[in-house]
Amino acid sequence: MNADTVKIIDLKESILADNDADAEVLRGELRKKGTFYLNVMSSPGSGKTTTILALLKELPKDIRVAVMEADIDSDVDAKTIAAAGFDSVQLHTGGMCHLDADMSRQGMRELPGDYDLVILENVGNLVCPAEFDAGASKNLCILALPEGDDKPLKYPLMFEKSDCVVINKIDAAPVFDFDMEKATEAIHKRHAGIPIFPVSAKTGEGVEPLAAWLASEVWAWKS
Amino acid sequence: MNADTVKIIDLKESILADNDADAEVLRGELRKKGTFYLNVMSSPGSGKTTTILALLKELPKDIRVAVMEADIDSDVDAKTIAAAGFDSVQLHTGGMCHLDADMSRQGMRELPGDYDLVILENVGNLVCPAEFDAGASKNLCILALPEGDDKPLKYPLMFEKSDCVVINKIDAAPVFDFDMEKATEAIHKRHAGIPIFPVSAKTGEGVEPLAAWLASEVWAWKS
Repeated sequence: MNADTVKIIDLKESILADNDADAEVLRGELRKKGTFYLNVMSSPGSGKTTTILALLKELPKDIRVAVMEADIDSDVDAKTIAAAGFDSVQLHTGGMCHLDADMSRQGMRELPGDYDLVILENVGNLVCPAEFDAGASKNLCILALPEGDDKPLKYPLMFEKSDCVVINKIDAAPVFDFDMEKATEAIHKRHAGIPIFPVSAKTGEGVEPLAAWLASEVWAWKS
Repeated sequence: MNADTVKIIDLKESILADNDADAEVLRGELRKKGTFYLNVMSSPGSGKTTTILALLKELPKDIRVAVMEADIDSDVDAKTIAAAGFDSVQLHTGGMCHLDADMSRQGMRELPGDYDLVILENVGNLVCPAEFDAGASKNLCILALPEGDDKPLKYPLMFEKSDCVVINKIDAAPVFDFDMEKATEAIHKRHAGIPIFPVSAKTGEGVEPLAAWLASEVWAWKS
């Protein structure tokens, strides 16, 4: 895909009263089509785009993948993904702080092909996106090491709703007082047993096991 | 104040339809009382509490100050402030992603004294708090250097509504590709001419000029 031709889609606010029911419908449709939908959430600047890029490079090549980049404004992220050679669309929320199932559907409609995996980069926000079921097969949350090991205690719902946590920017560990054991304990207090992947999306460290987890989830979804 | 006796206030959702009008009323009341109200906003983990603590230590001792720590859950931040010897209350939003004027009022009512300066640490969120006028005299936004220099482009409203931007964690500059000039330009594109203070709340670097700015705003408010 050419970065200059990236589509920008202005999302309309959903009129459906029952987003939870709609999210279940979307999940059913996607399972039937064999499309795994990964919802990536984090605070602003935790490295969502960089992590997605690193993941795309490590995923098995036979997985057909597209990325939806949600942002309040700007189109830099979708261009970054397209420049790496992957299908992507830019979703503009027009100030809205989250995506729901119907907005997911609006975005998917604009993707040009059929995919085994659609990745959504949600709006950077550790609060609101956790409250709205986007209809995803799985939710992934990124916690960047500079944000501190106490975030799972302060933003409990995000960690409860996530199926996988990525701890990003581990290359910056020497300059921050981040206690990996304390973070792991706090995450598991919110969501017992969920997988935690310490990575540096920048250097690529730790991305392989994360890609393996995602690939296995994609194949399990299709079987 | 004793950290063990920190009050926890469960905020009630406001029933007022017109928050903007209510915020103006609150601002008027506070000006009459001579209380400057500073609303501190940022992403989760940008260092709001640490910056507030560093500020408290640098402020002139004749400014009577209290801190309201808003959080979805947990009471660690108010305890941290109280342990440093300052009056503080913990506000629980019960899942809400922002504070508005009426919630500010609910918190102030529980503070034990009269103050020249009340500092609110808003919920960690770079989106929603910008949409709700808390009735503050001035809004301060913290951008942590690890979050990247592109954030003002992606979260425009936060920077438009802020009166002052702190760029925190500058001690981590060697391990991040953060372009201070680019960040300054992006911030001023959103809000021409607003003051920007690069600081390390951890080491104290740059906190003095920030404290001087705040002190001058407090005195200007009372005159």
